[in-house]
Amino acid sequence: MMRYFIEIAYKGKNYHGWQKQPDDITVQEVLEKAISVILQEELKLVGAGRTDAGVHAKQLFAHFDCQKNLETAKIVFKLNALLPKDISVQDIFHVADEAHARFDAIEREYEYIISFKKNPFYEDFSHLMHHQPNINLMNDAANELLNYTDFQCFSRSKTDVKTYHCTIKEAYWKLDGSRLIFRIKANRFLRNMVRAIVGTLLDVGLGKTSLEQFHKIIKDKDRSKAGTSAPAKGLFLMRVEYPKSIRIN
Amino acid sequence: MMRYFIEIAYKGKNYHGWQKQPDDITVQEVLEKAISVILQEELKLVGAGRTDAGVHAKQLFAHFDCQKNLETAKIVFKLNALLPKDISVQDIFHVADEAHARFDAIEREYEYIISFKKNPFYEDFSHLMHHQPNINLMNDAANELLNYTDFQCFSRSKTDVKTYHCTIKEAYWKLDGSRLIFRIKANRFLRNMVRAIVGTLLDVGLGKTSLEQFHKIIKDKDRSKAGTSAPAKGLFLMRVEYPKSIRIN
Repeated sequence: MMRYFIEIAYKGKNYHGWQKQPDDITVQEVLEKAISVILQEELKLVGAGRTDAGVHAKQLFAHFDCQKNLETAKIVFKLNALLPKDISVQDIFHVADEAHARFDAIEREYEYIISFKKNPFYEDFSHLMHHQPNINLMNDAANELLNYTDFQCFSRSKTDVKTYHCTIKEAYWKLDGSRLIFRIKANRFLRNMVRAIVGTLLDVGLGKTSLEQFHKIIKDKDRSKAGTSAPAKGLFLMRVEYPKSIRIN
Repeated sequence: MMRYFIEIAYKGKNYHGWQKQPDDITVQEVLEKAISVILQEELKLVGAGRTDAGVHAKQLFAHFDCQKNLETAKIVFKLNALLPKDISVQDIFHVADEAHARFDAIEREYEYIISFKKNPFYEDFSHLMHHQPNINLMNDAANELLNYTDFQCFSRSKTDVKTYHCTIKEAYWKLDGSRLIFRIKANRFLRNMVRAIVGTLLDVGLGKTSLEQFHKIIKDKDRSKAGTSAPAKGLFLMRVEYPKSIRIN
């Protein structure tokens, strides 16, 4: 058996997220089927993490085990031809037998995009808002995230994690023309965490939540006190980082 | 009666181009209906030009006459709420009674986007190619376009124009990551002209057509000798320019 990593990207609109589910179509299911067809071998994928329904990924990794020694460039080409237009494969590469797409990831980066003008080209890829929030207030609050490590307040209550600890390394908003982009980087994220953070920061930017209240929300560890989750279609998983040594050849 | 200009943008995928047609849905039809509903007045739009089925517009102007003195910002807001997600209104402004969206346009700019890697986010907005053409050869040929004025060779044969003369002011390719972008600017364009030019330039870049043959295609004025039209979904009308004096207040 050999272990491989597969690097993919997808537009989330038509999928109920990454993780396989009994009744909804997911990226994992579509991808597993396509790989199994092409390699003529029943394969299971283990993803770097799940994304919620409707969330996009510009880079996600998964690993799988396979009995064959793969001609990876050829498989990438065949997979892209077989897969629907909203899922693409960037790369497949050989890794050590114990390498793990989820446990070995050392950093993840997300972007959340808000647009303030109706734009047919951003429609599927941003959340449209009519009121422009105060970006300075939102950056003050975003910056405070780096001073905490327990983010239970931003986690979905139904979750199977053992700890709510995350190390946030970067979190800021920047204006890009008529769009506002939030970028956040951490070692790990809890379920629904980025959209809950964005919703809560927007409340700060719209003057509904003060900076003091923002601190209290985090300290109280109570999801019901944080803001509403921002819509999925504005969220992009941008990057998942592994130690360089993970790739064999 | 007062005359107004309306500035719009649209994703071409779901429309049979700009111009009204008996059996197909077009942007003009959808927009006329929406404006007529909101202004409670039967209105006709005259566009700056037609776009082919599937072609996108980041900026297109049309004019209409109306009996009311419009609160333009309010109308823009209402129109954006009523129109489908793939059509947006940027602006409405008052112009002189004789101003004309088609005849007064002094410059038009198009972009054509080619991608070389399958990418779920570019899928609707670019033409995917597997072979990378030679950009230097294509730029040599593109540059030659500025030395001609009769472009019958790139015009659809069924057309109602009186002359095939166009003044091309700019035409070049540039590489942008894994995408190749062609930008072309002229006083006017013939039907299907940009896609025919792109198709012919790609033939040059792939070594199917020499620079000498490219010259001959233009001189022979015969559409059948030029290349196949590049697919519509890679084409964007980017900008239509009018004299600044056209806008009243």
